[in-house]
Amino acid sequence: MRIETNEFRVHEGHELRLGERPTRIEPVYKSKQQYHKILAEHVKLLSEQQNLLYADNRFAVLFILQAMDAAGKDGAIKHVMSGVNPQGCQVYSFKHPNAMELRHDFLWRTTRDLPERGYIGIFNRSYYEEVLILRVHPELLLAEGLSESAGWAEAIWDGRYRSIVEFETHLNRNDTRVVKVFLHLSKEEQRKRFLDRIDDASKNWKFSTADMEERKFWPEYMDAYERCLHATSTESAPWYVVPADDKDNARLFVSQIILDTLDSLKLHYPVTTAKKHDELLAIRTQLESEGGTV
Amino acid sequence: MRIETNEFRVHEGHELRLGERPTRIEPVYKSKQQYHKILAEHVKLLSEQQNLLYADNRFAVLFILQAMDAAGKDGAIKHVMSGVNPQGCQVYSFKHPNAMELRHDFLWRTTRDLPERGYIGIFNRSYYEEVLILRVHPELLLAEGLSESAGWAEAIWDGRYRSIVEFETHLNRNDTRVVKVFLHLSKEEQRKRFLDRIDDASKNWKFSTADMEERKFWPEYMDAYERCLHATSTESAPWYVVPADDKDNARLFVSQIILDTLDSLKLHYPVTTAKKHDELLAIRTQLESEGGTV
Repeated sequence: MRIETNEFRVHEGHELRLGERPTRIEPVYKSKQQYHKILAEHVKLLSEQQNLLYADNRFAVLFILQAMDAAGKDGAIKHVMSGVNPQGCQVYSFKHPNAMELRHDFLWRTTRDLPERGYIGIFNRSYYEEVLILRVHPELLLAEGLSESAGWAEAIWDGRYRSIVEFETHLNRNDTRVVKVFLHLSKEEQRKRFLDRIDDASKNWKFSTADMEERKFWPEYMDAYERCLHATSTESAPWYVVPADDKDNARLFVSQIILDTLDSLKLHYPVTTAKKHDELLAIRTQLESEGGTV
Repeated sequence: MRIETNEFRVHEGHELRLGERPTRIEPVYKSKQQYHKILAEHVKLLSEQQNLLYADNRFAVLFILQAMDAAGKDGAIKHVMSGVNPQGCQVYSFKHPNAMELRHDFLWRTTRDLPERGYIGIFNRSYYEEVLILRVHPELLLAEGLSESAGWAEAIWDGRYRSIVEFETHLNRNDTRVVKVFLHLSKEEQRKRFLDRIDDASKNWKFSTADMEERKFWPEYMDAYERCLHATSTESAPWYVVPADDKDNARLFVSQIILDTLDSLKLHYPVTTAKKHDELLAIRTQLESEGGTV
């Protein structure tokens, strides 16, 4: 089932008000059973398209997932991408940068993990943290060697937005398609999920006191997301603001967005050239003559 | 269904004759339908165990797959590992080393891609190529900067076997479990599969003239594999010689071997310490008090 996702797209040049974007909408599925059916369909199509992406060998796809804690990033990756051949899909989760990484420019460390041709790369968090958590806690810029004189003002964020847009444009020019999803969670839904992680002992390991600290900066984060999504959503590397209070619904949108990206590439098996065809025929003769001798 | 795989194991210190190891045996499944059923069971268990490996956060698993061309390495990875969360499973396919990699010792380049704690790493080909293709074509040692004076003799291979065993022992000591499968294909079955790749246009891209060249060195490869497997199969990092003429049968053995490795780790969810428990309760109170204010 093809699901319309255009309404979630952030259109370049248009105003964006996150507060006006829904965190919950009418589910696209009518029952849990139908949800599983649609998801299974999507996963099957994704698996087929990923095979073709690998064989075709012309494009890479980079899928970036950003969100507040407990918005369902890990779950979305698990449920949408399990079923895809892990040989053609690499997931990177970026945690705190290490000392060496901090000594490089802010795009450096994630660049090393970009997907190669034929692969789907998934960034669970990404270089976007550099204009999100860093914007909410600008004192972290110090660790990156940026002093006040280098510009603590707005200029630093505008410069980073521009670097990101130019970087993604470069990737697009070189056949890596970039698509980005912000899982849009309400503060109330995060509260419920945090409580669940506390009450369910098998989920305790997912919860840290630091998550609770960050929750206090909710308005600052929404502001940083709003500015970032507005500044970095382009025609070739768009952002989607996906309502995330309903996990199942969100997963169907995520799988559809990745599928649409793959479909747009018009993938096909490599065409056998006349020269290769002749070579193959010669080998065929050789192999056939071996028949009796093995 | 638990499948016995012990008969395929190469036991440390025991003689190994690849010619006496079967490439085809009675299938463990009675019908295609039963094959799919057992595979689906294994994939489900693997997915659960991998979740636990990730949560448990103590061990990594390195699964190495080696074989002649068309033995079914890619297919085994695809069918056994699709269904596992790609966030916890990384597959690396090693092709020809680049100029920089050739300037390092033979274990260097693959080491960078070892799985971290909580992950399953799959090497589709590996540092073992350094005692397989290199042993069959010793002139390639020149590209690694090894001159005759440095020892073109047997000593170089024995040294490499020892380095590999010591390296894997070190990994085991540091909680990375290593398990290795050689997909044992007959020369006749390779012939059939090559013909299929020529006759089926959608598979032409998988076949290169170079594959046919390597086929000519079949006995040399079997000799190199036999020596290598004998020298590097240990109690903590065993080799399995899996009959591979029947792809479906091989996949069931492969999934069982990975499952057994995970089972042996006795994985469990992290235990919540008393201190963390208290912290969580304090946060719970905070979150509950927020209830009406959001």
